Amino acid sequence: MRKLITVIFLFTALVVNAQTGGRPPVIVKSPEVEQGGKVTFRFLAPNAQQVMLQRDGTTPKAMSKDSSGVWAFTETLEADIYPYTFNVDGNNLPDPNNPALKPIYKMALGQSMVHVPGPASLSWEQGNVPHGAISHHFYKSAVIGSDQDLYVYTPPNYDANRKKPYPVLYLFHGLTDEASAWTAAGKAHVILDNLIAQGKAEPMIMVNTLGYGVPDLLAKGFTGMTAERFKKNNELFVSSLIKEVLPMVGKNYNTGTSQKTRAVAGLSMGGGQALLAGLNNPNLFNYVGAFSPAVPVGADFKAGFPQLNKDINNQLALLWIGIGKDDFLLSQNKQFKQLLETNNIQFDYKETEGAHTWMVWRRYLTEFVPLLFK
Amino acid sequence: MRKLITVIFLFTALVVNAQTGGRPPVIVKSPEVEQGGKVTFRFLAPNAQQVMLQRDGTTPKAMSKDSSGVWAFTETLEADIYPYTFNVDGNNLPDPNNPALKPIYKMALGQSMVHVPGPASLSWEQGNVPHGAISHHFYKSAVIGSDQDLYVYTPPNYDANRKKPYPVLYLFHGLTDEASAWTAAGKAHVILDNLIAQGKAEPMIMVNTLGYGVPDLLAKGFTGMTAERFKKNNELFVSSLIKEVLPMVGKNYNTGTSQKTRAVAGLSMGGGQALLAGLNNPNLFNYVGAFSPAVPVGADFKAGFPQLNKDINNQLALLWIGIGKDDFLLSQNKQFKQLLETNNIQFDYKETEGAHTWMVWRRYLTEFVPLLFK
Repeated sequence: MRKLITVIFLFTALVVNAQTGGRPPVIVKSPEVEQGGKVTFRFLAPNAQQVMLQRDGTTPKAMSKDSSGVWAFTETLEADIYPYTFNVDGNNLPDPNNPALKPIYKMALGQSMVHVPGPASLSWEQGNVPHGAISHHFYKSAVIGSDQDLYVYTPPNYDANRKKPYPVLYLFHGLTDEASAWTAAGKAHVILDNLIAQGKAEPMIMVNTLGYGVPDLLAKGFTGMTAERFKKNNELFVSSLIKEVLPMVGKNYNTGTSQKTRAVAGLSMGGGQALLAGLNNPNLFNYVGAFSPAVPVGADFKAGFPQLNKDINNQLALLWIGIGKDDFLLSQNKQFKQLLETNNIQFDYKETEGAHTWMVWRRYLTEFVPLLFK
Repeated sequence: MRKLITVIFLFTALVVNAQTGGRPPVIVKSPEVEQGGKVTFRFLAPNAQQVMLQRDGTTPKAMSKDSSGVWAFTETLEADIYPYTFNVDGNNLPDPNNPALKPIYKMALGQSMVHVPGPASLSWEQGNVPHGAISHHFYKSAVIGSDQDLYVYTPPNYDANRKKPYPVLYLFHGLTDEASAWTAAGKAHVILDNLIAQGKAEPMIMVNTLGYGVPDLLAKGFTGMTAERFKKNNELFVSSLIKEVLPMVGKNYNTGTSQKTRAVAGLSMGGGQALLAGLNNPNLFNYVGAFSPAVPVGADFKAGFPQLNKDINNQLALLWIGIGKDDFLLSQNKQFKQLLETNNIQFDYKETEGAHTWMVWRRYLTEFVPLLFK
């Protein structure tokens, strides 16, 4: 037994030695989270000229190098989960010493996430409560013409044979995210576990789709994404949702067929998709949530919502829109609010603190979910 | 609509500009995989002194820098999926432009993976076949005293109410991996989809546990991992497997209770755990597979397997051991083979091409699975 450990040590030492050209490796702890929310970010780059910390919703911060070649930046943060990357002489990198990652769809590896722990009253803190499960499904979409995947959260003690079927929340990610974003970065499964345990939310199923009706929407980066392609992306996504995803979920899970048992919501691009899916199909969805939505219409309301009028007020149980005061999509959401008012559509609208970030969207989900299926 | 796209472009441009200090960003494509298996790895580091490509099972290769600050290395590779990292002046980094990641448990972010596509005859190539689903479960282990997770693969058209229960393969990862390793890097779900579609494997459930009976085994890196802690890690892992995981899987899935419907296998550390779980509990497992195992005994066979004798030949349907000729664990596996022979235990043993890598383990799984539950 000791022999095995010795062999592993020797092997590791050899690999490390080969990697560092014979120098002892520099051990870097990053991020280091201390009491009181003191967070130190570190990155080893002895020859870099400039290393910046890029944390969502903030301006980039210059880091400082010590004599061992480690760049560091320390700040004190409120309890939350923050996405960040390092920019090293123009190269945008996640933190290699941090296993927590928010993946990016196809284009790149992703952003690191630092968790500054807080009290159990924060909805995304994993409590000592029963946990639901997350199922990853793979399928070919005929509508989109490609392989797709989606995640399905089932609540604790989910019973496939329960007499009363479970309600379903369809919850969509934003542009550049992959299907796992709402669990990896949004901690939606933890939030649901906690709200259900507290009796604030109905035990429900949550479905997190992959939001690309045009699979190569981002293949050429943002510059290859024309307005036409973005519009087609939304249309095909919603079409696949209705023709393929809803039947698949209905077949594999214990769900109802009434619109009263279905909610649709999303963030940014996914918020726009939720508005399109929900407001154009009140026969399918009774609850609609748009978190910092990329509103899918400009001044021409009818272009996106041809049939929409005040009759929907008798059909929808909830239309909920939230947007941060520092969000770059604020002005288009203000415009959309006016359009809804002009068309006599009832809705809940709130402008909150925050920018276009997951710190905002976790709070929106926490507020939205208890309003569903009552 | 165009307005929205313009807003997104402006925002993106602002962020990119802030990140690069006003210089136009250098677009890096990595890895670039061309026809014939030509692979080019690239990394932007204008001021680095040395950038090495570290690909599992090979010696590190020096990369060359061009005038734009991009380091590159090109090689031609057989169709497969290869883990790699870049070492940049001593800092070990995954490829920031490659979304495919093999995660590492707690210690670090992980390794990138480059997929060199091959013919459909390769078991890990996603075919046009029905796909199973992967469920992620979260639970508290009383045996281990911490939060744990595991993944459960259910085969295509899994039927929770089928009269004949499904057999289960318990499949374990290696040291530094997390519970997702067999799907993220091993493509075990794809391999099972394909083998089932070809009629080569029984439709089965696969369970991928988290292999740490000592949750902080790696908290201080390899140097904090004593032989005692490694042994305790295996013991508590196997104890939790039997007392907690088997009952949980039995409760939530349509599985049988006979040892004839259970297989246990693993790679490296997980191979040792599979030997401990399987050879010490033939009443629970009828099939045992050890892929490049970190054999949990030295010369003292009885220390790890106190009850084991040739009677097990009447109980086990299969004991399968595979090890690569270039694997650093080869000599201990040769020794273990002799111990099994001395004790008159029947087994299949093969020395194959390859080192301690996922390229080997995917092939072992492909060979092992068709032997199960016949």
